[in-house]
Amino acid sequence: MSADIEFIPVEDATKLATGILLGLGLSPGHAEAIARSVVTAQRDECYSHGLWRLLGFVPTTRKGKVSLNAVPEVDASAPGVVKVDARYGYSLLAFREGLPHLVEKANTLGITAMAINNCYHFSALWPEVEDIAAAGLVSLVMTPSHSWVAPAGGKKPVFGTNPLAFGWPRSGPNPFVFDFATSAAARGEIELHRRAGKTIPLGWGIDSEGNDTTDPTEALKGAMLTFGGHKGSALSAMIELMAGPLIADMTSAESMAFDDGAGVTPCHGELIIALDPKVFLGGAMAENMQRAEKMFDAITGQGARLPSQRRYEARARNKELGVPVQKSLLAELRETLASLG
Amino acid sequence: MSADIEFIPVEDATKLATGILLGLGLSPGHAEAIARSVVTAQRDECYSHGLWRLLGFVPTTRKGKVSLNAVPEVDASAPGVVKVDARYGYSLLAFREGLPHLVEKANTLGITAMAINNCYHFSALWPEVEDIAAAGLVSLVMTPSHSWVAPAGGKKPVFGTNPLAFGWPRSGPNPFVFDFATSAAARGEIELHRRAGKTIPLGWGIDSEGNDTTDPTEALKGAMLTFGGHKGSALSAMIELMAGPLIADMTSAESMAFDDGAGVTPCHGELIIALDPKVFLGGAMAENMQRAEKMFDAITGQGARLPSQRRYEARARNKELGVPVQKSLLAELRETLASLG
Repeated sequence: MSADIEFIPVEDATKLATGILLGLGLSPGHAEAIARSVVTAQRDECYSHGLWRLLGFVPTTRKGKVSLNAVPEVDASAPGVVKVDARYGYSLLAFREGLPHLVEKANTLGITAMAINNCYHFSALWPEVEDIAAAGLVSLVMTPSHSWVAPAGGKKPVFGTNPLAFGWPRSGPNPFVFDFATSAAARGEIELHRRAGKTIPLGWGIDSEGNDTTDPTEALKGAMLTFGGHKGSALSAMIELMAGPLIADMTSAESMAFDDGAGVTPCHGELIIALDPKVFLGGAMAENMQRAEKMFDAITGQGARLPSQRRYEARARNKELGVPVQKSLLAELRETLASLG
Repeated sequence: MSADIEFIPVEDATKLATGILLGLGLSPGHAEAIARSVVTAQRDECYSHGLWRLLGFVPTTRKGKVSLNAVPEVDASAPGVVKVDARYGYSLLAFREGLPHLVEKANTLGITAMAINNCYHFSALWPEVEDIAAAGLVSLVMTPSHSWVAPAGGKKPVFGTNPLAFGWPRSGPNPFVFDFATSAAARGEIELHRRAGKTIPLGWGIDSEGNDTTDPTEALKGAMLTFGGHKGSALSAMIELMAGPLIADMTSAESMAFDDGAGVTPCHGELIIALDPKVFLGGAMAENMQRAEKMFDAITGQGARLPSQRRYEARARNKELGVPVQKSLLAELRETLASLG
């Protein structure tokens, strides 16, 4: 354990995060939903999505783009589709408000879609698929972002980093979850390489002429690449379509134009598909969930990891210890809170 | 145009294919559904899924595993899920029988799942997503196969080559469609390299010890790899779960055990998710379909290809010419038909 780390109780971390968010003018609903997300990520040692994000809120909230007190509007009138208009607030509260409707419909129909519109992207998608799995549902979640990524065979950005997340409920403490960007690397990772004066691996990006580059500055000016060549590119296009035009929301290129150089987190739609295994399986639930466990065992039994395994190990480790926070970050967060007081 | 190619009318190709399939003992429904699929692939110059496949039917049908006259049983009693029991026949007829129910439910609910159970894999999934797109629906289709593919970080096969296909309806003649294996390469492609005495690229497979190999024989004995590293591996796991245990069907490892060395095409389940844009968009259909077209233009406008573009170009080229068939294949197919007469 690093000497730079201090462990604080979940309640204290949540109070600190909520305090900052309220101080910045977010409504209690938004503040609570966001605090829960960043504390969960911090607890899982998923630091890039953790408490550090709160510092980024200070300039962002002052740009006036994101509504800090938007009240999401839920429309569950269509039989198999829940629509939530986030009204240009952060996505998490909209997700929280729509979730009970999504679960109720999926319990009846077996499959249901939830479209969140006009929301500002907030952090990772895995906390959402974990919440859906906690309700016993399988889910698939996707969003566009800003057009930074070139299609396979192209030179100019069209797609966003377009994350795709999936959750599968398990009887143990943690569901099977993955959450990845369809870009080869995260944009922040390229930025970190640039700041550190390091080269990036081939395959992460191309320069403005469309040539492969290991120079992060050139890649940031040119275009990022998808993971997995033309297959990753096809998946990224699917995410643009399903979490864009299908739900009457912006593609990554439109979202970038909408941002108009403000440099705010992407405003976009989000598509969630939830499936209820109970409806599919009826009395054959236990037997089939066991089939899935056998497959997980075949993976872990040969020493390979399941996605999220590292995160779950951190979670288990920190259950008694509390939320690990870098001491310098903790000091900065406390200063921020005091300055907003 | 190669001198080895003869163009024959679609009707003649269909008659030839149907004749062989009926001669092999397939019921008229199965023979028609399969003939349509192989002729469509042949017309699109997608030869590996074309008429050539009919030759493989001769030994396969004699192994007695696949039911040649199974009547699929459709259960559309659950509100948002259509279940089709293929009763150990080929998948295509089961798909055809379930499709009207899938379309009807999706038109009402906005989203519907169709689970096909106990079916023998037949060829590519793109003809199915094209049929669904022709009904105006967006779709996502997936199946497990046989456990030939190692998970990321592992050495031993767990996953199948697990294809994923997606379709998006467009107003022009062809929908936006992709259909790819989540393995880095097709198993048949590795087999072709082996027969030709050629090495395979790094990343396609590992030997029995888990070491990277360029030797196709070693890779076929060891394990294939997924495309896109841990991300492709996560997707492949998702397909195992959603088109396996979620719909009460076999994982790729179970299907391999079920085959018991017979070397027949994989017996598995298939999951289809269909979404109706009209339910999501209502009066905003035209405007949002236009948004999608703008994205397609941004891809093709910079000289990059859309998935399936090559296939659609072949289709357009052969519209007047007919179905291109290699002369030696045509002779072999005619001999096969005569021998079955």
